[in-house]
Order: sequence, then C-alpha cells, then structure tokens
Amino acid sequence: MHGYSAREAERLRDQAGALALLLHHDTRYPAGAGVLECGCGTGAQTVLLATGSPAAQFVSVDVSPASLDQARGRIEAAGCRNVAFNIADVFNLPFADACFDHVFVCFLLEHLADPPGALHCLRRVLRPGGSITVIEGDHGSWYCYPQTAEATRTVQCLIEIQARLGGDSLIGRRLYPLLSASGFASVRVTPRMVYVDSSRPDLVESFSRNTFIAMVEGAREQALALGLMDAAAWDKGIADMYRATEADGSFCYCFFKAVAHAPGAISS
Amino acid sequence: MHGYSAREAERLRDQAGALALLLHHDTRYPAGAGVLECGCGTGAQTVLLATGSPAAQFVSVDVSPASLDQARGRIEAAGCRNVAFNIADVFNLPFADACFDHVFVCFLLEHLADPPGALHCLRRVLRPGGSITVIEGDHGSWYCYPQTAEATRTVQCLIEIQARLGGDSLIGRRLYPLLSASGFASVRVTPRMVYVDSSRPDLVESFSRNTFIAMVEGAREQALALGLMDAAAWDKGIADMYRATEADGSFCYCFFKAVAHAPGAISS
Repeated sequence: MHGYSAREAERLRDQAGALALLLHHDTRYPAGAGVLECGCGTGAQTVLLATGSPAAQFVSVDVSPASLDQARGRIEAAGCRNVAFNIADVFNLPFADACFDHVFVCFLLEHLADPPGALHCLRRVLRPGGSITVIEGDHGSWYCYPQTAEATRTVQCLIEIQARLGGDSLIGRRLYPLLSASGFASVRVTPRMVYVDSSRPDLVESFSRNTFIAMVEGAREQALALGLMDAAAWDKGIADMYRATEADGSFCYCFFKAVAHAPGAISS
Repeated sequence: MHGYSAREAERLRDQAGALALLLHHDTRYPAGAGVLECGCGTGAQTVLLATGSPAAQFVSVDVSPASLDQARGRIEAAGCRNVAFNIADVFNLPFADACFDHVFVCFLLEHLADPPGALHCLRRVLRPGGSITVIEGDHGSWYCYPQTAEATRTVQCLIEIQARLGGDSLIGRRLYPLLSASGFASVRVTPRMVYVDSSRPDLVESFSRNTFIAMVEGAREQALALGLMDAAAWDKGIADMYRATEADGSFCYCFFKAVAHAPGAISS
C-alpha cells in the first residue's frame, strides 16, 4: 500500500508537470529582476515562477486574504524565499509607476468585466521595455471525440455563466487584440494546445478528468438554477464527457500565452 | 511592376512554407525506402515528400487521371525523379502484400465513408514494422475573434455537406481511435494548430483568407441548394469571417498528424 502511494504521488507530480511545462517552460526571469504576479490566487503558479526563476524577486498579490494564506503556505513548503505577498486589486495597485521589471498574470483577465482597464493598470507599474506575460484559457476551444450535443451544451453553460458574472471565458483568442489595443509593443501570442488520447493516461486523469470535466461539473447548480439546462440533460452531458476519456476517445483544449512589452527600451 | 511581382512570388513561397513546415517538417524517409502516397490529388504534398526525402522512392496514386496529370506536371517542374504515378483506389490497391516500407496519406480519410476499411487496405501493403503517416484537418476545431453565429453556421454547413457525402470533416480528433482499432501499433497523434493574428500577415493571407475562408466560400451553392442557410445569412457569415482577419482579429484551426506502425519489426 505504501509502495502504491509513493508511486501515486510520483504520478501526480508528473501530471502537474505536463501542464506546467506546456504553459510555463518558457517563462524565466533574470537574477535581480522585480516581477509582479497579479491575481496569484492560492499560489499554484507562484511556486512555478519562484522555483523557475530562483534569483528573481516576486511580489504576488491577490484580493483574497484566504487565498494569500494558502499561497504563502505553498511557497514556504517549497522552500522559496524570493516571494513577498500583498493584498491588492489589479485596478488599485499600491505600487509606484514603472517599479516592476516584469508583470505576470495567469487566469485573471477571464474573470474581469474590464480587461483593457486591468491591462492599463498593469502597464502603469511596468518600466519601459519591461515584459508582460498573460496566460488565459478559452472554453470555446474545447472539443472531444465522441462529442454529443449535451456535452457541448454543458461547456456552453460555463461560458454563459462566466458572461453573466461579467467575465469572458473565450478570452484566450482575444489576447492579441487586447494587448495591442492597450499600448503594449511586440505582442506575441502562442497557442498552447492540450491534446489528450488514451496513449497519455496521465493527461486523461490530470487534465481531461480532474481539471476540465471537474471544472464543468462544478457549475451544475448554477446552470440548473439559471434554467440553462435541465438536470437530466446536464448529467448526460457530463457522462458523455467522461465517455470521451475512455480508450477510444480524445479531448482537446487550448490555452493562450501572450508576451508583450511596455513601450521603451528593450528588456534584458 | 516586375519588382513587385518578384516580391509577391517570394511571399507566396514563404506562405506555402509556413503550413508545409507545420505539417510536414518531421516526415523524412531514409535512402532506398519505398513509400506509398495514397490519394495524392494534384501533388501538393507529393512535391514536399519527394524533395524532403530525395533518396526515397515514392509511388503516388489517385483515382483521378486529371489530378495525376497535374501532379506529374508539378513533380517534373520541381525536377524530382523519385516519384512514380499510378491510377489506383485505396480500396483496391494493385500492389502485393507488405511491399511498401512506409505509407503516407493526407486529406484522404475525411472524404471516405469507410476510413477503417481504407486503413485495413493500407495496412495490407505495408511491411511489418513499416510506418503509416496520416494527416487530416478537423473543421470543428475552427474558431475566431470576433466570432458570430452566422460565421459559425457557415462552417457547420461545410461539416453537414461533407457528412451527407459520406465523409467526416471532424476526423482529425478521431485519428487515434481509428488507427488503434485498425491494428496499428505505437499510434502517436500530435495536433498541429494554426493560430493566426495580424502580427503574421503572411498567414492571414495564405491560411485564413486564401485557404480556410476560400474553402468555406466554395460551399455556398450547395449550402443554399440544400436549404442549410439562406443567402443573406450565408453572405453575412462569410463577411464576418473576413472581419476576423482584420488587425484586431484572430483565427484558429487544428490539423492532426498521426504516425503508427504495422505490427512486427520496428522500422528503420
């Protein structure tokens, strides 16, 4: 049993590694760089940033004290000493103009009613030539095999619920125009597509089941309460999505990563 | 004017290069290998195969004599001497069992009512351990920004028309289960996503406009004749797709490439 648990823990680390590699492998900050991570949540990305760029100095902020407590715990558990935490809102950052070398945001803009306003606030605290990195998903990029109308409709519910909350879960495809219109220069967007079939049981488990379907399942009560679907159709949609994680299925989703610069001298 | 034309020709070569690189850069056959290209059409891929693996010997077949004539012309214009052409149908290949080292098919299975049957026929002529490479698109992988209901509907028409003709334009996501169920071993599928924004004017022109939207536009008469959309909605959908190719738009599509092997000794 212990042997199994150890192997299981190893497997879980490998799983987390596949998605982290896809999204974060090309984010590295030089020694001494000052980096603002805005909307750090419970610190899932903070640990990757801090360990990936051990000689950079991070300031990670979030609006939720409870999330910051969790993030602090993760960073301590990882033994990192290069992260300072602050309670702060992207629209009201308690930092001087141009005081950061780099800015990093991940899964933040999708929740905001005013992404251009947020980018404007982030640009203010970024020095000329400094880089901004933005990573977001796009729920409209999801598809699978076999795919049914009910499964498609459950994902559509998620998109509609996010829209009613003022967010945009189709924001990945908008990163290029958003950053360009916000005055950033040399905007470069790269898609980070997750393709999963049963030759990758680790990704079937970690991404298709435990990340994506779990996220959709979490919207059940809201979708039913809003009358977007009835319970039977919803449950069939979820079962159909699990069906696509079987040996003869496939599952696709795309994240988008943008890197751009504040106008001015080129960042080192 | 001449200067412009030369630059234009250069640009067109560059454009063709981007998609070819994405789909074909990792297909190389060793000296002396015998390769069947099935469904070569007018030879667009044949030229890439023959020039990419100049010491391999290709047999390229198609059911259409007119297409084969064009393919022959392209190969002669490219100065290749390692391709033999034959009229043949995938379901009735005039070749002995196990006589090819490798098999290559591109944009063929999507048109067939019986992809597993075709794969069975291709497997017959492949030696044990030989590789099969399959490249297909997936029209359900398309999305853009901004996206409208009419634009989505035009692409849906394309999918429905293909389905009525017995084909499956959502076949990209099915390559893994199809090849696995057809008895091929070590099936590996990789997505080849095309992401286009206005930082890549070459791809806006060559892929979004001249490949994808042009293909959708070609289905206008059929879509209207079948009553799938009315003319006004169709024309708005096409105009909306062009809108997504402007400076603040984006455009996404995904091809899938599968490589697998006939059971037996591993291919060199």
